[in-house]
Amino acid sequence: MMIHSRPEMVHTHQTAPTQFVEANGNRFAYRRFGKSGGVPLVFNQHFTGTMDHWDPAVTDGLAMTREVILFNNAGISTSSGEVPGSVEEMAVSAAAFIRALGLAKVDVLGFSLGGLVAQALTLAEPGLVRRLVLVGTGPRGGEGMATLTPEAEAVFGATYAHPDDVWLGVFFTPTEKSQAAGRAFLERFRLRQQDRDPDVNEKVAPAQIEAISKWGAPRAGMFDYLREITQPALVINGSNDVIIYTVNSFILQQNLPNAQLILYPDSNHGSQYQYPALFVADVTRFLDAVVPFPTRKDTDHG
Amino acid sequence: MMIHSRPEMVHTHQTAPTQFVEANGNRFAYRRFGKSGGVPLVFNQHFTGTMDHWDPAVTDGLAMTREVILFNNAGISTSSGEVPGSVEEMAVSAAAFIRALGLAKVDVLGFSLGGLVAQALTLAEPGLVRRLVLVGTGPRGGEGMATLTPEAEAVFGATYAHPDDVWLGVFFTPTEKSQAAGRAFLERFRLRQQDRDPDVNEKVAPAQIEAISKWGAPRAGMFDYLREITQPALVINGSNDVIIYTVNSFILQQNLPNAQLILYPDSNHGSQYQYPALFVADVTRFLDAVVPFPTRKDTDHG
Repeated sequence: MMIHSRPEMVHTHQTAPTQFVEANGNRFAYRRFGKSGGVPLVFNQHFTGTMDHWDPAVTDGLAMTREVILFNNAGISTSSGEVPGSVEEMAVSAAAFIRALGLAKVDVLGFSLGGLVAQALTLAEPGLVRRLVLVGTGPRGGEGMATLTPEAEAVFGATYAHPDDVWLGVFFTPTEKSQAAGRAFLERFRLRQQDRDPDVNEKVAPAQIEAISKWGAPRAGMFDYLREITQPALVINGSNDVIIYTVNSFILQQNLPNAQLILYPDSNHGSQYQYPALFVADVTRFLDAVVPFPTRKDTDHG
Repeated sequence: MMIHSRPEMVHTHQTAPTQFVEANGNRFAYRRFGKSGGVPLVFNQHFTGTMDHWDPAVTDGLAMTREVILFNNAGISTSSGEVPGSVEEMAVSAAAFIRALGLAKVDVLGFSLGGLVAQALTLAEPGLVRRLVLVGTGPRGGEGMATLTPEAEAVFGATYAHPDDVWLGVFFTPTEKSQAAGRAFLERFRLRQQDRDPDVNEKVAPAQIEAISKWGAPRAGMFDYLREITQPALVINGSNDVIIYTVNSFILQQNLPNAQLILYPDSNHGSQYQYPALFVADVTRFLDAVVPFPTRKDTDHG
């Protein structure tokens, strides 16, 4: 038998083929690229988003130092199944998908709704998650999270010359500088030409809103569960998130036992797309560190 | 006339000689070391602290990439004069000291009370300050800032086998890891043997408490002044600051027009001494960046 050896194809956000894996009765679409050999980073997407809503500046930036895995959760775009009506069920799907890839330990990044899924996944499967990156997200019962915020209602309810322009209001502040960064982001996330995900169907938004509302409903002791998430965590948001209010990132950090908070200036829900170089540097440092938050004793070798 | 040339003496936190300069009717003690040629970084010290209360891991770490200037403000230890009863007067002194060194533009770092002085200095002399680092500090009228917090009363009111042990409670959390980092800090800040500053006299604490109380008193529109501080700012604190509550760092970032917030995990008022490597890296990146918070457009050259 001959062994054929060839240099591995190096894929990027633009070229990574969509692959499929069966798990939990569904067929999950995913893309996997970057530097292999370490702990992969699994991305969990926001409300109505697909794999093509990630910013290549972020995914390719992080793929320089690790394998990144994008996927569509159940019922999203090219994945089969239905979007469940709770974050916890979305987390069950996500865990099944990760296990179906044969992975026993991953880093998890969640943005917005994806950040809720990332928390629920870590609670349900603590052994599966090494480190956690929570971006533009919030805790159970967080401030203004039981319903869409008034700002989100306005932005999602408006009509736009180009449909993607909705993201200028969701992810960026009204300042000239932030809007310019937003237009640059829209150019980047439209760059992939082939094998793009079709938009989600009309059943997705209602199911996701139901799940977000259940998660966001205030209750007694609503932040207690965060004490159980002992993984090192990095919480990142913009200064002026009007979709999931910035104070919720502060609440996450204050209640997670081992978390750092970073808030970038003059930025909204998509601060990581406004400052991709800072974001990639901050996340890379956090994920690469042997000790995630080293004291001087941890770094001293003298 | 002969010109004598010799390699410049490279000083560190431990070896930098105390120098003196006259300004505003006072004689200011200072130490100046590090990489010259750029914008110097002026350190403003906390309640009852002298130049010897800075951590060499922080000062020498930052001195790798810039000149650092430590000084005793009016009435502190080896500087002449009286401690004034307001933060604004302390800022007048600080500005006079900086000008007396012949400096027209500096970066300013302020820790705790020093962070109040740094804000007042920037307000009074906006042209003098390029960038601002605010550590373990808070805004005018900040939460719990009109008086010493109950936790501060308890820590400062207790007696200690070694007087410096008070800083274990002021700067570090009760966790084993934080206390171990605290003991390592105490070893570092006692390392300088020669030419140490004598402790402040008994008039210092009452005057500084008067100044802090005036600053901390709640008033209408108390955060409005922060909109006038347009310099790029980096706000850093521990997750559990019991001296100036952590929420005040969040309030600073939320009201400063161009500020990033970083909160480190499991840390109290002295998070920069618990995580000096992270702190030095974060502050160095912020101060060295051509654009302090670059968007992708700022970093693209393609």
